[in-house]
Amino acid sequence: MESAIDTHLTACPRTISRRVPDAYQPPFPMFVGRADETLHQVTMAYLGVQYRDGGQRTAALAAVAEIVGTFDIADGPAHNDITRHTDKEGYVNLIVVGYWRDPAAFCRWLRSPDVNGWWDSPERLSGELGYFREIVSPRAEQFETLYAFTDNLPGVGAVMDDISGEINEHAYWGSMRERFPLSQTDWMESSGELVVVTGNPADGGRVVVQGHDNIALIRSGQDWREAGPEERALYLEEIQPTLQAGMDFLRDNGETVGCYSNRLVQNIDLDGNLLDETYNIGHWRSLEKLERWAESHPTHLRIFTTFFKVVADLDKLRLYHEVSVSDGANQIFEYLNCHPSTGMMRDAKVMASR
Amino acid sequence: MESAIDTHLTACPRTISRRVPDAYQPPFPMFVGRADETLHQVTMAYLGVQYRDGGQRTAALAAVAEIVGTFDIADGPAHNDITRHTDKEGYVNLIVVGYWRDPAAFCRWLRSPDVNGWWDSPERLSGELGYFREIVSPRAEQFETLYAFTDNLPGVGAVMDDISGEINEHAYWGSMRERFPLSQTDWMESSGELVVVTGNPADGGRVVVQGHDNIALIRSGQDWREAGPEERALYLEEIQPTLQAGMDFLRDNGETVGCYSNRLVQNIDLDGNLLDETYNIGHWRSLEKLERWAESHPTHLRIFTTFFKVVADLDKLRLYHEVSVSDGANQIFEYLNCHPSTGMMRDAKVMASR
Repeated sequence: MESAIDTHLTACPRTISRRVPDAYQPPFPMFVGRADETLHQVTMAYLGVQYRDGGQRTAALAAVAEIVGTFDIADGPAHNDITRHTDKEGYVNLIVVGYWRDPAAFCRWLRSPDVNGWWDSPERLSGELGYFREIVSPRAEQFETLYAFTDNLPGVGAVMDDISGEINEHAYWGSMRERFPLSQTDWMESSGELVVVTGNPADGGRVVVQGHDNIALIRSGQDWREAGPEERALYLEEIQPTLQAGMDFLRDNGETVGCYSNRLVQNIDLDGNLLDETYNIGHWRSLEKLERWAESHPTHLRIFTTFFKVVADLDKLRLYHEVSVSDGANQIFEYLNCHPSTGMMRDAKVMASR
Repeated sequence: MESAIDTHLTACPRTISRRVPDAYQPPFPMFVGRADETLHQVTMAYLGVQYRDGGQRTAALAAVAEIVGTFDIADGPAHNDITRHTDKEGYVNLIVVGYWRDPAAFCRWLRSPDVNGWWDSPERLSGELGYFREIVSPRAEQFETLYAFTDNLPGVGAVMDDISGEINEHAYWGSMRERFPLSQTDWMESSGELVVVTGNPADGGRVVVQGHDNIALIRSGQDWREAGPEERALYLEEIQPTLQAGMDFLRDNGETVGCYSNRLVQNIDLDGNLLDETYNIGHWRSLEKLERWAESHPTHLRIFTTFFKVVADLDKLRLYHEVSVSDGANQIFEYLNCHPSTGMMRDAKVMASR
């Protein structure tokens, strides 16, 4: 049994204790991603294309292809995937997420003429499509992962080096926090609120939202591509409906519980075909708000108890999550031509003087 | 907002941190019992009479009346109540629970000729009835309370002096532990296992079970005596069935999760009439085992989410709990003529050499 916190990230002395006694033994095995000491910080870039359902699908997929095309230039991400979801306002959103193992490389990529020129082009504002980028760069001590499997890690795990053995910190409320290396010494509390610093969501056009320290981002995934009939049924009949209900609650009522944005997305290929893989992307005011919701909301508790019931027998159904917090200075939230409830815009304060 | 831990019980320095950040705010008000500094330790004595359903009801009620009669002699308990439940083996158990604010007074009571003579009398072993006493004496830092109301505190609250204002440590998993003053500096871990030190449960007769440090005892109560029709329906239709399912699980499968004994009991008067008041009495190997079950078992999570849903509107329906740990030296578990699965006997190890 290993700690979820890698040796080189162990704080000495630890100033915040764990919740459970040393004798704690988890009831089933789970695993975390491992990276060597050269991984100091990663970048997770969610790059979106938005359109009102109708004739824009082809144009939106072309925009996605353009974005994915820029990943092949120097300093592109080491890993990416593409998803689709319909939001509360009925818009379809295609999101490409890229993972970089080094924010300096990400920065060079972002500033490259192809990428920068595309984003700054007046064309981005003149068409029928909306675009957004929501990007965070957590340091190694600011994120944690959890997998019920050990191969072909998705998401940030794909830019890590290895998988752990069975880890101790899981299967109790508070274990998510305790898997963060930073939790050993820091409460990761929110430093403020979202503020619109450029443009006005109500006017469309170009909007920049300023985040704050310790916005929490969770990606929580379900992959039944390889599942046999039984696991497929388990997922589609037992897990998926409850998951959908919980995620719909957060999409529609997030502001009441500290959830800035919540999207249950389904993976697609470059042609827009749906794959048997979904994940939820949730942005939270703080890790604490995410904890409070997760451990008290009936839908999430049902997800949790179902997971407990089935986890020991999982074969090809792949369940996982990754959670990060980030410094306000390491966040980018920008929107072009998007509807005013998109992403961080919904809960961002527009300053009265502007 | 106050801490559940009273000022005079605040550890300085605290060596084990809380689970939640300082900014934590509970979503609804709850209260705890307050005692002044003269309360150093209490005694909770569960005194049982057991019989196989049938003709022994009158005799059992007479035995209960005898026990309650001894409370009137010097050094009797400051508070008591009486309950009835049928156990897994189909035996009826009547339990009188007495609360003392001072274990020295309890000790004098226990050793008084009336009490001692009654317990030691050969008559206790010759009739159709069984008897047991399960007694713990937690120190002030070894127990916590939680009430959704502020008047006429039941249980240990009845021997305390006052009720708190709204307290901070509730409505998150881990808050029970954090309400224990001792949790500031001690993990309250189990020191061993139950051992039969006198007699043999299989033989009936006189059996003494030796406990161990930090056995946790929870009394978790529901009182709908004064409830109007709506709250009565809420309790009987929404809360009670789930509660029953969860408590039945623990009664029948407790050994798989670290629960030594679990009894959902209903209050009665001295004539044996059922009252609209129940509570669960659970003995656990450790507070940690209780925490793990409570936060992961579907039935308890349903109880918890129902409570969250209704708590803000409670009027006359009274929900509360008290939880203690105790030193092995401050525990008495004794059985006379009881069936071998009674109380602590079920999970107690019979030494091979005996």
